[in-house]
Amino acid sequence: MNSDWSLDPQLAAECTVLGDLPLSRALLNNDANYPWVILVPRRAGMTELIDLPEHERATLTKEINDTSRALKAISKCDKLNVAALGNVVSQLHVHIIARFRTDAAWPNPVWGKAPRKDYEPNARKRLIMGLSERLQIEPVQG
Amino acid sequence: MNSDWSLDPQLAAECTVLGDLPLSRALLNNDANYPWVILVPRRAGMTELIDLPEHERATLTKEINDTSRALKAISKCDKLNVAALGNVVSQLHVHIIARFRTDAAWPNPVWGKAPRKDYEPNARKRLIMGLSERLQIEPVQG
Repeated sequence: MNSDWSLDPQLAAECTVLGDLPLSRALLNNDANYPWVILVPRRAGMTELIDLPEHERATLTKEINDTSRALKAISKCDKLNVAALGNVVSQLHVHIIARFRTDAAWPNPVWGKAPRKDYEPNARKRLIMGLSERLQIEPVQG
Repeated sequence: MNSDWSLDPQLAAECTVLGDLPLSRALLNNDANYPWVILVPRRAGMTELIDLPEHERATLTKEINDTSRALKAISKCDKLNVAALGNVVSQLHVHIIARFRTDAAWPNPVWGKAPRKDYEPNARKRLIMGLSERLQIEPVQG
């Protein structure tokens, strides 16, 4: 039973919900500096990847791979960054970030580097539509 | 055939080889600020997690989990950070870092925060022995 799970308020405030994959809620980080998806397994009380039971860890690996492929295909990025950190928001979540040699933080990791930047509404909508289509999830906001 | 694979020179310079897991070479980053293992799949020419064929991606997931558990058990850390970035060293590698609320970068990610710090030789040896034992790999340096 995971009826106790709810999305962390900070993630909710900073992201747009793309929809639900079998295990994870998929979010788009509202920062136009980098196409940046966050996957949040809908399991209460978990903070580490190793907290997931083995079969769900396999599901998450598949969801990370699918999201990585979708983000790469849509963004034509130079590199993907995949990370589970959780030092600030402890709720288990995985960052999948499309990086470009020309982006605001390259070659550094993105955290704490560039001020958050608003998406141009049409660019944001196109990205959400593209991700939703490739990940076969219904957009719940757009 | 992966006879073409060799460890990236920058990783080789900054790390101590712990030994080989079924897929990955396991390294200890020579930075006493954080107990920090790096897994490098012994596959030539790969830069992204999604470059690995599916069965090797599953093996890597298991190796990440095993290493995470070993590092957590030995270090008694507050949090694990797991990341595949590769913006500087493009050879596919995964960071598994034990974090403490008292460490030199907390709560930020570790990259670019604190100057590298040498291990006290006995502390380094104990960590290498502990990791080698838990990961069931023969120490090749120590």
